[in-house]
Amino acid sequence: MSLVLSRRRLAAAVRRSGPAALASRWLHTPPFATVSPQEISGSSPAEGSWTTSGNWNWLVDPLNGEKFIKVAEVQEAEIKPFVESLSNCPKHGLHNPLKAPERYLMYGDISAKAANMLGQPVVSDFFAKLIQRVSPKSYQQALAEVQVSQKFLENFCGDQVRFLARSFAVPGNHLGQSSNGYRWPYGPVAIITPFNFPLEIPLLQLMGALYMGNKPVLKVDSKVSIVMDQMLRLLHACGMPAEDVNFINSDGITMNKLLLEANPKMTLFTGSSRIAEKLAADLKGKIKLEDAGFDWKILGPDVQEVDYIAWVCDQDAYACSGQKCSAQSILFMHKNWSSSGLLDKMKSLSERRKLEDLTIGPVLTVTTSSMIEHMKNLLKIPGSKVLFGGEPLENHSIPEIYGAFKPTAVFVPLSEILKSGNFELVTREIFGPFQEVLGRSVNGTTYAGIRARTTGAPQNHWFGPAGDPRGAGIGTPEAIKLVWSCHREIIYDIGPLPKNWALPSAT
Amino acid sequence: MSLVLSRRRLAAAVRRSGPAALASRWLHTPPFATVSPQEISGSSPAEGSWTTSGNWNWLVDPLNGEKFIKVAEVQEAEIKPFVESLSNCPKHGLHNPLKAPERYLMYGDISAKAANMLGQPVVSDFFAKLIQRVSPKSYQQALAEVQVSQKFLENFCGDQVRFLARSFAVPGNHLGQSSNGYRWPYGPVAIITPFNFPLEIPLLQLMGALYMGNKPVLKVDSKVSIVMDQMLRLLHACGMPAEDVNFINSDGITMNKLLLEANPKMTLFTGSSRIAEKLAADLKGKIKLEDAGFDWKILGPDVQEVDYIAWVCDQDAYACSGQKCSAQSILFMHKNWSSSGLLDKMKSLSERRKLEDLTIGPVLTVTTSSMIEHMKNLLKIPGSKVLFGGEPLENHSIPEIYGAFKPTAVFVPLSEILKSGNFELVTREIFGPFQEVLGRSVNGTTYAGIRARTTGAPQNHWFGPAGDPRGAGIGTPEAIKLVWSCHREIIYDIGPLPKNWALPSAT
Amino acid sequence: MSLVLSRRRLAAAVRRSGPAALASRWLHTPPFATVSPQEISGSSPAEGSWTTSGNWNWLVDPLNGEKFIKVAEVQEAEIKPFVESLSNCPKHGLHNPLKAPERYLMYGDISAKAANMLGQPVVSDFFAKLIQRVSPKSYQQALAEVQVSQKFLENFCGDQVRFLARSFAVPGNHLGQSSNGYRWPYGPVAIITPFNFPLEIPLLQLMGALYMGNKPVLKVDSKVSIVMDQMLRLLHACGMPAEDVNFINSDGITMNKLLLEANPKMTLFTGSSRIAEKLAADLKGKIKLEDAGFDWKILGPDVQEVDYIAWVCDQDAYACSGQKCSAQSILFMHKNWSSSGLLDKMKSLSERRKLEDLTIGPVLTVTTSSMIEHMKNLLKIPGSKVLFGGEPLENHSIPEIYGAFKPTAVFVPLSEILKSGNFELVTREIFGPFQEVLGRSVNGTTYAGIRARTTGAPQNHWFGPAGDPRGAGIGTPEAIKLVWSCHREIIYDIGPLPKNWALPSAT
Amino acid sequence: MSLVLSRRRLAAAVRRSGPAALASRWLHTPPFATVSPQEISGSSPAEGSWTTSGNWNWLVDPLNGEKFIKVAEVQEAEIKPFVESLSNCPKHGLHNPLKAPERYLMYGDISAKAANMLGQPVVSDFFAKLIQRVSPKSYQQALAEVQVSQKFLENFCGDQVRFLARSFAVPGNHLGQSSNGYRWPYGPVAIITPFNFPLEIPLLQLMGALYMGNKPVLKVDSKVSIVMDQMLRLLHACGMPAEDVNFINSDGITMNKLLLEANPKMTLFTGSSRIAEKLAADLKGKIKLEDAGFDWKILGPDVQEVDYIAWVCDQDAYACSGQKCSAQSILFMHKNWSSSGLLDKMKSLSERRKLEDLTIGPVLTVTTSSMIEHMKNLLKIPGSKVLFGGEPLENHSIPEIYGAFKPTAVFVPLSEILKSGNFELVTREIFGPFQEVLGRSVNGTTYAGIRARTTGAPQNHWFGPAGDPRGAGIGTPEAIKLVWSCHREIIYDIGPLPKNWALPSAT
Repeated sequence: MSLVLSRRRLAAAVRRSGPAALASRWLHTPPFATVSPQEISGSSPAEGSWTTSGNWNWLVDPLNGEKFIKVAEVQEAEIKPFVESLSNCPKHGLHNPLKAPERYLMYGDISAKAANMLGQPVVSDFFAKLIQRVSPKSYQQALAEVQVSQKFLENFCGDQVRFLARSFAVPGNHLGQSSNGYRWPYGPVAIITPFNFPLEIPLLQLMGALYMGNKPVLKVDSKVSIVMDQMLRLLHACGMPAEDVNFINSDGITMNKLLLEANPKMTLFTGSSRIAEKLAADLKGKIKLEDAGFDWKILGPDVQEVDYIAWVCDQDAYACSGQKCSAQSILFMHKNWSSSGLLDKMKSLSERRKLEDLTIGPVLTVTTSSMIEHMKNLLKIPGSKVLFGGEPLENHSIPEIYGAFKPTAVFVPLSEILKSGNFELVTREIFGPFQEVLGRSVNGTTYAGIRARTTGAPQNHWFGPAGDPRGAGIGTPEAIKLVWSCHREIIYDIGPLPKNWALPSAT
Repeated sequence: MSLVLSRRRLAAAVRRSGPAALASRWLHTPPFATVSPQEISGSSPAEGSWTTSGNWNWLVDPLNGEKFIKVAEVQEAEIKPFVESLSNCPKHGLHNPLKAPERYLMYGDISAKAANMLGQPVVSDFFAKLIQRVSPKSYQQALAEVQVSQKFLENFCGDQVRFLARSFAVPGNHLGQSSNGYRWPYGPVAIITPFNFPLEIPLLQLMGALYMGNKPVLKVDSKVSIVMDQMLRLLHACGMPAEDVNFINSDGITMNKLLLEANPKMTLFTGSSRIAEKLAADLKGKIKLEDAGFDWKILGPDVQEVDYIAWVCDQDAYACSGQKCSAQSILFMHKNWSSSGLLDKMKSLSERRKLEDLTIGPVLTVTTSSMIEHMKNLLKIPGSKVLFGGEPLENHSIPEIYGAFKPTAVFVPLSEILKSGNFELVTREIFGPFQEVLGRSVNGTTYAGIRARTTGAPQNHWFGPAGDPRGAGIGTPEAIKLVWSCHREIIYDIGPLPKNWALPSAT
Repeated sequence: MSLVLSRRRLAAAVRRSGPAALASRWLHTPPFATVSPQEISGSSPAEGSWTTSGNWNWLVDPLNGEKFIKVAEVQEAEIKPFVESLSNCPKHGLHNPLKAPERYLMYGDISAKAANMLGQPVVSDFFAKLIQRVSPKSYQQALAEVQVSQKFLENFCGDQVRFLARSFAVPGNHLGQSSNGYRWPYGPVAIITPFNFPLEIPLLQLMGALYMGNKPVLKVDSKVSIVMDQMLRLLHACGMPAEDVNFINSDGITMNKLLLEANPKMTLFTGSSRIAEKLAADLKGKIKLEDAGFDWKILGPDVQEVDYIAWVCDQDAYACSGQKCSAQSILFMHKNWSSSGLLDKMKSLSERRKLEDLTIGPVLTVTTSSMIEHMKNLLKIPGSKVLFGGEPLENHSIPEIYGAFKPTAVFVPLSEILKSGNFELVTREIFGPFQEVLGRSVNGTTYAGIRARTTGAPQNHWFGPAGDPRGAGIGTPEAIKLVWSCHREIIYDIGPLPKNWALPSAT
Repeated sequence: MSLVLSRRRLAAAVRRSGPAALASRWLHTPPFATVSPQEISGSSPAEGSWTTSGNWNWLVDPLNGEKFIKVAEVQEAEIKPFVESLSNCPKHGLHNPLKAPERYLMYGDISAKAANMLGQPVVSDFFAKLIQRVSPKSYQQALAEVQVSQKFLENFCGDQVRFLARSFAVPGNHLGQSSNGYRWPYGPVAIITPFNFPLEIPLLQLMGALYMGNKPVLKVDSKVSIVMDQMLRLLHACGMPAEDVNFINSDGITMNKLLLEANPKMTLFTGSSRIAEKLAADLKGKIKLEDAGFDWKILGPDVQEVDYIAWVCDQDAYACSGQKCSAQSILFMHKNWSSSGLLDKMKSLSERRKLEDLTIGPVLTVTTSSMIEHMKNLLKIPGSKVLFGGEPLENHSIPEIYGAFKPTAVFVPLSEILKSGNFELVTREIFGPFQEVLGRSVNGTTYAGIRARTTGAPQNHWFGPAGDPRGAGIGTPEAIKLVWSCHREIIYDIGPLPKNWALPSAT
């Protein structure tokens, strides 16, 4: 089950596929890869063969329903080696500021090599295309995911990993004394990530955990885990020790059992709020969460730059078929915008989207009929109407287990939203001046200003919820330190004793 | 129930007690106080009358068993006003870096005034003596608790509260863009603290919560809550708005219900591990914990400064009758020390302790018979023996619900401890070189070096566990920021648009 | 010369003045004081008697020309004890993060006590009135100077002084190695400050120097040095060791000689640019400078809040008779403001100022005739005119060596300013958008936004020039650390040696 | 003279040399290079042809005295274009946190590409060999210099350049107000670096200056400037704009004139103390200095690890023929070491050094006869003696203008050193306990502990003097920020005005 085993399997697999297969593959794929994005198909399926489980599941191609990837999923009875591997990691971690500091440098080197490798066009292209196969989005969106990951790795080249472990000291009360604050790892940890960003989310969290000295077990949604399967091979090629990470494919029930048995000191979960809350209780809060938000955009009374705003709204709502964590869910629009032509422009823009280039594509977690039902419910509200879209995609072979729906916007009068009661506070705030809105809200990552948009922000910004002590962040040095390490205080008091020290009274 | 009500009650109480009573009291107590530590007794009991509950419980004097304090405990049916008060606090808090910044200054002023008032000898003395009445410890220990609290308040005078809310900004990708990291409050929060430090623990956590912009409900163990009752009056006298804090006396079940109904965004719990774990599950991890540790001391092979070490061991083990969070539970001693006379010296020192000056006193959470039973179990281990103590205190009137036991040490051979299985890892580590021990452990606050001892450390050091994502700290600016606020990221992107911006393709 | 001597002198002075004198004085002055602001006059002059020099100079009262303060000025031949005292301070300072850390705590205590004492109304009032006597400004302005100083002391209570000495450590390459960055003092240092803020500037720089571990010699402009003379007595009363500071009254030539002989490791100079540049060369750059700026205000095209803006302009230009470091020297006004009534309002506001309450008062460094001459030169520029003022004050007894002039504004057309050649760059910038102006300038402390004004800013902001490697700041923890300490790096590499270390080849 | 010109020259040079020349060169040199380290010789001299000066100087090969490099040195009459180029840079820099932030990203990209290119074996080898030709040292030492430079570039990949410009904000007094601290560039700056590290010192300082937004003119000692000449070509190949840096070869007098005319806002000088002090006065302190130190090592009373210590002493004293900034100048040895064999071991190790592999080589700034004279002076001290070395190298062709001397150690009794007067303080300190020595000294970068040695320290540590306000550092983010930027404070106060604002009285 561990990477040590899987590397052997990889060698075997390579032997099996034979030199002829390799020759043609190498035109399209980098040396570390074991699959070729363009060639995966029903007739030539890929294998996600990281583990030794005998239980194979088929994934269907989201664009045509063919069985195209076979994944070995670990069963409940097979988790023992994972539990043991985690348990073998001491709770002070694989390294920390006072143990094995050379590993900080090793991860600086790995990051430099991986950043360089991932930055090579053939490799970026390989991952972008592989992402497109399992989480359909436009090539630009898939490539952007690769590039953000590449920049993240660049940020932790050289000494930057050890800089994450920078400690501080404050002078003590007397000669020889000081109080010292360190960032300490948790030791054995778990990472669970979703389908929508198959590379960026698991890679960034995985590296953060490793940088700080933890030993993670990583579970990515099996529908897309082939991407991290390949990424781990790249990392191994760049020098990452195989035993530093355990990689598992399984269903949620098995993973839940593994967590309860292995009892990792920390678990990072990115995914639905429902599962997040269950896990938080199961793990008694030893968890950091990044759950989906209901994301809103506010357009204030000053109408300006309508073309630009329309484009931002279109991208924020429909890029990646609306499956970004930061996808715009609701747009509050001051009445001044009603005559600006904004909605018409948004309609035109949405109609540019097409299945051929995946500017619109399958929805992996909601079926077409569910979306139709939700829309119908909204339309029961007095005054509501479909602005555009509102129909299933046509001429497609997306399987029924996935959704296939045109970019859609439903208008609901604010006065009706207000009736729903506890929504009042939010809506009472929203037309105050700019700073006041920011000061009177506790949203997670927030984008403010005329050019504000999620995907136009620096790739290094903290992304995550606010207002929850369990909230995780991703993307920055601060996020890594807060999510993947804890404070440890050591008071050094090395003497000498004061001259003429005498026994005090008991107290 | 809220402080608004209670102030009225206070005024009424003052009226009732009349001018004569006041005249004599003012010799011993400061103006804000409503009790006099020396005068509380069975015949002249004190009232903890913060809330309007009709349900009064009697506390018995831990030194003689007399009913000496009457506490009004809120019942399950009475929690509604607390729930409402918390709910009225918006989740962006009473203030934050973008809202009501004048409140940071107000808390700087309150801290300066309170530090000054608490530093006046009559006030320090008042609190030290009040602490002694409910949590018996020597005057020096009680006074030290007051002094640490006073220094903490000094640390947050002037602008230092707003410095806690210092944010950072990183240049963005283009003119007008920056990413900003803020420390944001949680809004409604809860604080639950134990009996052993009736002033320091609740005051420091309360002020930390307030500094960052939260609205706390505070519950201190009813046995000692009269100390914070008086401290809140001091804070009000220094300008703290009455409505900023809710103060509650109740049993654990009622508090649990309140938490589940009011759903504070964060709860700080200091106390037993058992309750901590239950609360963590109930609150789905929206919690920070500071639970009791099993604290150990290691003496390495270099024998030196035996008198000093004996004194440190005596203080660390028996000061406050061993009821400090940091009290030494076990001493690992290299065999080189066996002929050093250390144990004999420790015995002599322990025998200096006496009930009269409370250098030994009642144990508030374990009865005498439980301690005897535990000792007997230890003595069943081959080779174990009582080094000193091992008997109940004599000639005392400590009530049976509390413990009364001499300072005691039981020797257990390390070889036998090793047999107990999972203890192996710890013990295998402990005789490595100094740095190695530190690098191979994940203890919370750790004291290292020849002069190392918990109560000799700077009062401003971070005190708290390590290795748990729910771990809370206390005592430093870092602790306040990590426990009482979360990261919020705002990306400003204020334009202008690039000249000649043109509509890009959809992605 | 040293404070040890001067304290004896103080005692002697107190003895001389006798109990009767004391009785009446104590109604107006705090215990540490040796002068009474209200009673200083030609018939009852004060003595600035800090040093033993036999050379006494008379200061004249800026309001009526009477000789009212006698100052003992050290002569060139008398500097030896000052040189020796500085030389006796080791260059690693009186304390540093690895030496005498208890002194950080001592200064935290001194600051707490001094903040408290200075915050008492009788003491604030004493200093405000004393400032008014030597540097005439309105009571509110003088009191504000005291209050800013008081808040500064509050900021460094408790542990906050040692927090200034917080160091950091980065993990090294192998077990036992780390690189550590410390803030180290310079040791012997000098501080030279001007007349306009007799308390705030010398006190803040002095305390900053002391906090970090330096031993300063302090020279304040003799015209106002009686204020710091009294403040040092307050600090001594709060526990500051007399030998930590040397205080000198002398002329510039003597001070220059002292600096060249004593060779302090760092000199802080606040004052005129001309002297700053000379000192910088004399001291070969071992200096930090805070020189007067030519301060400008820009009003952009959006006309709003005219009453408020007029008030801000009046305060920023004429408070303290225009002798603040931050006093507005020039106002750039977009033409949109010409019909707003702004200039008329400014005229009215300036006419409220009167000598009686010192809202306008003597100018200590420029005579009336110099100001008239400068005005006449400006009026030669085509299109220029006096907007208001432009005349000497009337009915006053300000001596001729000082200036006495009404609040004055001269209008100069921007087109004429532009002609002066190299001014073009500045003026070309100034009507760009807000952020662009900030991004395209390198001014020191800058106030931006509709409410922006210097004296409305938080008292804890960094005040100082930008763009000069010798630039000093004042007022914040960052300023103290950058001005009064330097980086010192220590690499600890405590072993152990790697097992099986073998001799490498020479390289 | 500027790089814009020089690129054209380069193109021309490439054209001239023709395809045949290129073909053979590419076997040994990277594409950007215009010289081949192995091929430079008297018969095939290299040209340092960056500028258009008509004045060519010859450099002689330090190993055989042949004229082997021709350098065009700018004359006093030719500095005008350099002065103009610097003057054209605004004093707010080429970028700053509020201007052109995309340039931070550009320099992150340049660093990533340059780190990668410099990490390629052919490129590292090229630079190591080129360094050896002009500043003879062993291949390992020269390669280490390249590797440190490469790691430095890795440290500033991706977003790490903009992280250097991270600012902070503190909440203000009221809604809409905050005080903000920025790191601001100086604009036009100068860098002057010496011969001993031809790549590392100029590259690190140059990049630091550029990262923060400055426009530098760079002057490297002409004897070795060909190395940076080639490095600049590498940087251009990685995307650095040609106009960002001016590169000049000249003598000191010309450079001095340039500085006085161009008046750069900051000058970084690394070199001899004598010139440093002159420049500091000439530039009135607008300078940061890193001058040579007199470096000492202390061996305390605990004798241990003698082989290791002997090796460290040999390396620290004689690697790079003692021409490192950190080269050990004096060794204080406790008498306990006298019988340890340490000196004998050091003698043996020094005798391993030989000219063939440049483990000993020419000294570029001191002639053989000067060294002999200095040694003779030392030997006049009673009790002093030559421990080893003390003779000129034999069988070499090092030209007379350079030094050629065996690794040498002279013993001087401590009692004699003490006689020299003011040395007493230092020597009285040095046998105190470890921490005390550190606390009682103010040395620049200090290496403490049994494994301590300069070149064994992490390459990212701050290297530089302490105790001088003009002191520069090199090698870390802190060094870059402190040397190459200054604090700028902006107070934002964006409103709104308080409701019911009314005109206050004048003050």
